[in-house]
Amino acid sequence: MASGGPCAGLLDYKTAKFALTRNRRVGLLHRLLQLGVLGYLLGWVLLVRKGYQESDRAPRAAVVTKLKGAAAAAGAGRRLWDATELGRPPQGETVLVLVTNFIATAEQAQGNCPESPSVLDATCTEDADCPMGNPVLRGHGIKTGKCVMFNTTHSTCEIYGWCPVENNTLPREPLLAEAENSTLFIKNTVHFTKFNFSKCNTLQTNDPTYFKSCTYDPFFNPFCPVFRVRDMVEAAGETFGDLALQGGCIGVRIEWDCNLDRPAAECRPRYSFSLQDRGYNFRTASYFWDSQQRLYRNLLKLYGIRFDISVHGQAGKFSIVPAAVSIGTSVAFFGAATVVCDLVLLYLDAKADFYWKEKFEEAKPPKGKAEPKA
Amino acid sequence: MASGGPCAGLLDYKTAKFALTRNRRVGLLHRLLQLGVLGYLLGWVLLVRKGYQESDRAPRAAVVTKLKGAAAAAGAGRRLWDATELGRPPQGETVLVLVTNFIATAEQAQGNCPESPSVLDATCTEDADCPMGNPVLRGHGIKTGKCVMFNTTHSTCEIYGWCPVENNTLPREPLLAEAENSTLFIKNTVHFTKFNFSKCNTLQTNDPTYFKSCTYDPFFNPFCPVFRVRDMVEAAGETFGDLALQGGCIGVRIEWDCNLDRPAAECRPRYSFSLQDRGYNFRTASYFWDSQQRLYRNLLKLYGIRFDISVHGQAGKFSIVPAAVSIGTSVAFFGAATVVCDLVLLYLDAKADFYWKEKFEEAKPPKGKAEPKA
Amino acid sequence: MASGGPCAGLLDYKTAKFALTRNRRVGLLHRLLQLGVLGYLLGWVLLVRKGYQESDRAPRAAVVTKLKGAAAAAGAGRRLWDATELGRPPQGETVLVLVTNFIATAEQAQGNCPESPSVLDATCTEDADCPMGNPVLRGHGIKTGKCVMFNTTHSTCEIYGWCPVENNTLPREPLLAEAENSTLFIKNTVHFTKFNFSKCNTLQTNDPTYFKSCTYDPFFNPFCPVFRVRDMVEAAGETFGDLALQGGCIGVRIEWDCNLDRPAAECRPRYSFSLQDRGYNFRTASYFWDSQQRLYRNLLKLYGIRFDISVHGQAGKFSIVPAAVSIGTSVAFFGAATVVCDLVLLYLDAKADFYWKEKFEEAKPPKGKAEPKA
Repeated sequence: MASGGPCAGLLDYKTAKFALTRNRRVGLLHRLLQLGVLGYLLGWVLLVRKGYQESDRAPRAAVVTKLKGAAAAAGAGRRLWDATELGRPPQGETVLVLVTNFIATAEQAQGNCPESPSVLDATCTEDADCPMGNPVLRGHGIKTGKCVMFNTTHSTCEIYGWCPVENNTLPREPLLAEAENSTLFIKNTVHFTKFNFSKCNTLQTNDPTYFKSCTYDPFFNPFCPVFRVRDMVEAAGETFGDLALQGGCIGVRIEWDCNLDRPAAECRPRYSFSLQDRGYNFRTASYFWDSQQRLYRNLLKLYGIRFDISVHGQAGKFSIVPAAVSIGTSVAFFGAATVVCDLVLLYLDAKADFYWKEKFEEAKPPKGKAEPKA
Repeated sequence: MASGGPCAGLLDYKTAKFALTRNRRVGLLHRLLQLGVLGYLLGWVLLVRKGYQESDRAPRAAVVTKLKGAAAAAGAGRRLWDATELGRPPQGETVLVLVTNFIATAEQAQGNCPESPSVLDATCTEDADCPMGNPVLRGHGIKTGKCVMFNTTHSTCEIYGWCPVENNTLPREPLLAEAENSTLFIKNTVHFTKFNFSKCNTLQTNDPTYFKSCTYDPFFNPFCPVFRVRDMVEAAGETFGDLALQGGCIGVRIEWDCNLDRPAAECRPRYSFSLQDRGYNFRTASYFWDSQQRLYRNLLKLYGIRFDISVHGQAGKFSIVPAAVSIGTSVAFFGAATVVCDLVLLYLDAKADFYWKEKFEEAKPPKGKAEPKA
Repeated sequence: MASGGPCAGLLDYKTAKFALTRNRRVGLLHRLLQLGVLGYLLGWVLLVRKGYQESDRAPRAAVVTKLKGAAAAAGAGRRLWDATELGRPPQGETVLVLVTNFIATAEQAQGNCPESPSVLDATCTEDADCPMGNPVLRGHGIKTGKCVMFNTTHSTCEIYGWCPVENNTLPREPLLAEAENSTLFIKNTVHFTKFNFSKCNTLQTNDPTYFKSCTYDPFFNPFCPVFRVRDMVEAAGETFGDLALQGGCIGVRIEWDCNLDRPAAECRPRYSFSLQDRGYNFRTASYFWDSQQRLYRNLLKLYGIRFDISVHGQAGKFSIVPAAVSIGTSVAFFGAATVVCDLVLLYLDAKADFYWKEKFEEAKPPKGKAEPKA
């Protein structure tokens, strides 16, 4: 620590002195651990996890959907349903139902009638089972106090409510089976706030009719965001006819995995479809007054396929801080390998005693007040 | 580095040589730091954080809700509301309103009438306060230029709009208080993509009527996903009657905490309820034409309890990479403990000088061109 | 390891012995690396990332929105639209559309009529182009088998569906341009579960009319959660008139960045607005019967500005575990700096040979069965 200016000592590099003890087993362990760390650094941290990149895993996503198509309802009262009627709700949000089947109950009016026998709380054998004024639990009205015949086999409580109650028998075939050819346009924009980078799933195209004619296909047309309903159902591993009868929920997942160190054109969405649930229906009613100003309603129980669109994304870009931290951590793990091997050598090896002696060199501090009495 | 084949030297394990300096204080500090790291490793990393598991914290979640029940509206115009009318919107999504109270304004038609005095911009004392053609800020129509009497105490601008304007007085009691016995069925499926593991909150059951009869109870029936509305409100710390009057928002949180190293049957949802907000209402209208083809509407201001369902989840499963990283990090922390103690010994200890001398052994490199001129 | 009681040896602090080798270049590198780690620890980990805090980045957020205002539709059939009609859907959720323009198609009935020429699949030159019974792809009905004149320039397939089909010409000016003065009230509550801390974006105020009169302004009134629509559109970098014509999507982002080590009053939301997409419309219809019980509907294609509200937040609070881990990691990085310098010295330096000899001191273990045959 002599010559060389004021900060010379500060800059002298001091390295730990090693006792060069030969131990092949521990040496092998050491090399294996170092190899593991190196593999972890190169393979996992840098290649798989891209640890040298800063990443944004929570993009802002905007989704607008639009259904197109039409289907003629089969059966009695044949009528055409267009996209406005097939798709609910109309606003085109991330959750959208395509109606595929329905049970219509026409001209309900408020009055007294027997409750449906499918409601457990409504089954009765005598009037005492139907205390007047109580609502039927999970039912459709308020008990009037009478037990009446629903049909030849069932007796149920009479209720005050919308009468007659809905007929529960589902058609054998989906009434709107033609809806399978409908298309769903999903417009999705993602914005990675951290990098101020936006991308839309509609490609830049000069052809004004492109989105009017293209259809998504995972192999031939993977960047057209217009999906035929039947294709989506089949990509989720189902057949349209089966799912259409009782309805169901299909998850549509849009994934953006963008490496912003590469050209922006390579940042493209991937679509995947999965069945979330079998069976989906809801009810809706339209109200009207007859000429005597009496209120009526038509009740529709709509079965449909619910598409639930979720957007996930991540973008990464080289940045010096995460790169330094990733490498620093891995280098620190090299140090950890040495700690582990020392422990093995000093505590587990057959000649631990010898290594112990070689490793430690006694140094006695001068006696003084700083040393506690031992 | 002599005998033993070509890679013998490579496999010799070299361990750092220590100066065995006695310092009880720093030794104690060293042990404490090591104990801390050990406690962190065993207690926090392995036990609490399950650092040996790979985890998936963002499951895909599908939620379908369905409301059942009926309530007779109290007061004039007694009428039954069934589930189709009590629950809005009808599709059964994650946000669902149960209507508990309402203000009806019948037969509004477009025309001229005084604005409501509850709108600040509409109060006036003379016609000049109501410039013709301006919309009333946060109001219901366009000013006609006249200041008219609303009632004996208030004067307001006359507007062109839907007339008469809504009467703002809320009933003293919720008109649909019977809705407290309604039930909400919440069907929830989670899918942990990373482990390709799915689970639904409806248990596998052989009893076809199970979901028609069961009701959720945190102690006796914690896995029945049918919730009585009053129970949910009470679990959020409120009483149904209070909240029903002016409406409110209840958060329903479903949490899945799944350890996939254990049997799948132990992966079960937990439900919690919390009050998010007091006061909730919205307006809706139904339109009709009278015999002279004049358009009328009935306006309903609906107060209700909004249920906002959110699903959170995490699943963990043993995996070698996170296990090695967790342990490696902790071992690296052991090395950090040594660095701290060295700093204390060499810079803060009363006999730092002595330790400095013992620790460093001078080695002079031979002079050569590689050494910069100092 | 002699005097001092049973655990004396255990508490002796042993420090690595260093070969004090002078190497200015590596010394400089070492200091630079240490400086980098120190900068990382103080600047990044502690100051920027607040590594001494436990953090909650996924608050529960509840949002209720309410639109106020009115606009008179320009053009033929002048009629007033109030907030109930301007804002869709009515429930006041996180996605809300303000209608700014529309195309009305009055009195559609089911029957036969030519399909719109904007549907590609409907253009035809002869009847054979329109196979009977096929739905028009992305169209409005089912082909009847005839090719008919739509107007003087286009021939299209005749369809069975809602007739006549919608007229596609958009008004030159938005019909509901007055809607720019509407206000959107956004009530937002966040709850940080980890710290059991809740906050609402409506300030505590004693003035009951405060929310009836205030308007958000980023400089003068940043805590009033009532936003004028035109201000929001302009904050997103657009003009209301342009966006109103064809509609668009505006993202409203509410950000809470709460340091709970500081007073709760400093935890306040920040609002930001961005254009997500240009062009937004959807269709809705209202149904009625004429005196002969024939079903008619009025179809509305509504163009509007969709507000998509998202809430993000994070809260941090001092906690001992993350503080210790952050500091421990950084100290481990000091060790990593030494590993790097050792590698440079022993493998890259011009006098690596000399350092190698100085660093390693040979120690021969006694021969025994534990040593593998070399």
